[in-house]
Amino acid sequence: MEILKQRILKDGQALGIGILKVDSFLNHQLDVGLLNEIGKEFHDRFSDVEITKILTIEASGIGIACMTALHFNVPVVFAKKSEPSTMTDGAYEAEVFSFTKNKNYIVRVSRNFLDKEDKVLIIDDFLAKGGALQGLEEIVRQSGAKLVGAGIVIEKAFQEGGKALREKGVRIESLAVIQSIKDNDIKFY
Amino acid sequence: MEILKQRILKDGQALGIGILKVDSFLNHQLDVGLLNEIGKEFHDRFSDVEITKILTIEASGIGIACMTALHFNVPVVFAKKSEPSTMTDGAYEAEVFSFTKNKNYIVRVSRNFLDKEDKVLIIDDFLAKGGALQGLEEIVRQSGAKLVGAGIVIEKAFQEGGKALREKGVRIESLAVIQSIKDNDIKFY
Repeated sequence: MEILKQRILKDGQALGIGILKVDSFLNHQLDVGLLNEIGKEFHDRFSDVEITKILTIEASGIGIACMTALHFNVPVVFAKKSEPSTMTDGAYEAEVFSFTKNKNYIVRVSRNFLDKEDKVLIIDDFLAKGGALQGLEEIVRQSGAKLVGAGIVIEKAFQEGGKALREKGVRIESLAVIQSIKDNDIKFY
Repeated sequence: MEILKQRILKDGQALGIGILKVDSFLNHQLDVGLLNEIGKEFHDRFSDVEITKILTIEASGIGIACMTALHFNVPVVFAKKSEPSTMTDGAYEAEVFSFTKNKNYIVRVSRNFLDKEDKVLIIDDFLAKGGALQGLEEIVRQSGAKLVGAGIVIEKAFQEGGKALREKGVRIESLAVIQSIKDNDIKFY
C-alpha cells in the first residue's frame, strides 16, 4: 500500500536495529484518515470471503479494527489484557509471549462474542515475532469459529512470525512488508 | 441520544447496585455502526467550537474517539497506561485513581502530540467518579492546550465525577445520563 509506505518513510523512525517507531500516526497519535484508507484496503483484499466479525487486541489494534469494520459492516471484538470485573460469563484465554517486555501475559475474549458460526478476520498493527497473532489464532480456535485471515498494517519480514503462521495455513495480508531496518534506513519488499 | 438509551435498555445489564455492563456493544464487542452515530452526535454537539485534536485513554475510549475524529477530521491521541519502550521524547503524566481496581496508575501522553496550539476534545466511554477524566484534564493542562470539552457516552449521574468537573468549568456533553441502576432497573434523566 503505497501511501502507507510513503508515510512510514516520512514519519516513521528507525530506533536502533529492527525497531520502528510509528507513534505519530499509527499507535499513539492516530491519523484517522489514514486508518480509514487502511480499512478500505483490507476490505478490498478480503472482498472474496465472508466475514462476520473482526478480532483485534488492545490497545493499538482497536482504531485500525474499527475503521476496517466500518467497511465490512461487522462488529469488532478486542481481546483484553486484564480481566475486567464485568467479564462474568467465561472467557477464551490464550497466553501471549511479549518479546518487547520479555514476559507472558494472558489475553481474554468473552465467550459471548465468538462462536462456531463466526467467520473471523484478525486485524493488528504489527506482525514481528507473531506472539499476539498466535494468541488471537488460539482464541479463534477455542471458539470453534473459522479464521478467515489476518490483516496486518506493518509486517517485519526479517522476524519469524509471519513465516510460522503462514506455514500453519493462516492467510496473512500485510500492507507494508519491511525487509530491513538499519541505520535509519527502512527497506520494503 | 435516544438510540443509545434504547440500546442500553435492550442490551445493557445492571450488575448489582450501580454497575452497568455494556460489553456487547461499547467496551469489549464494539457496534461500529452505533459508534459512528455516537461520533456524529458529538460532532453536532461541539459544532460551535474549534477542535484540533481528540484525546482519549486506552482501551475502551479508542474506538469511540476514532469514530468521532472521522467526523471532525482531526487526529486522535490516546493516553497510555504503560510506558512503551518507544516513548523516548518525554511525556505528560497524570496519576489516575481507579475506583474499580482500588489503586492508582499513571497515564502518559508523549509531548510530541499535544501543545499550546491545540484545542482538545476529550472522549471517553464512561464518566462515574471522574478519575480518568481528571487525569486527562491534567495532561491537557500540562501541555498548555485549550480544553474545549469532554464528550462522554454514558454518565452515571449518581456518582460525583460529572459534578466535580463541571464545577471546575469543564463543558461535558453526555449522550446518556443515568439517574439510578437498581434491581436491573436503569433510569435515565
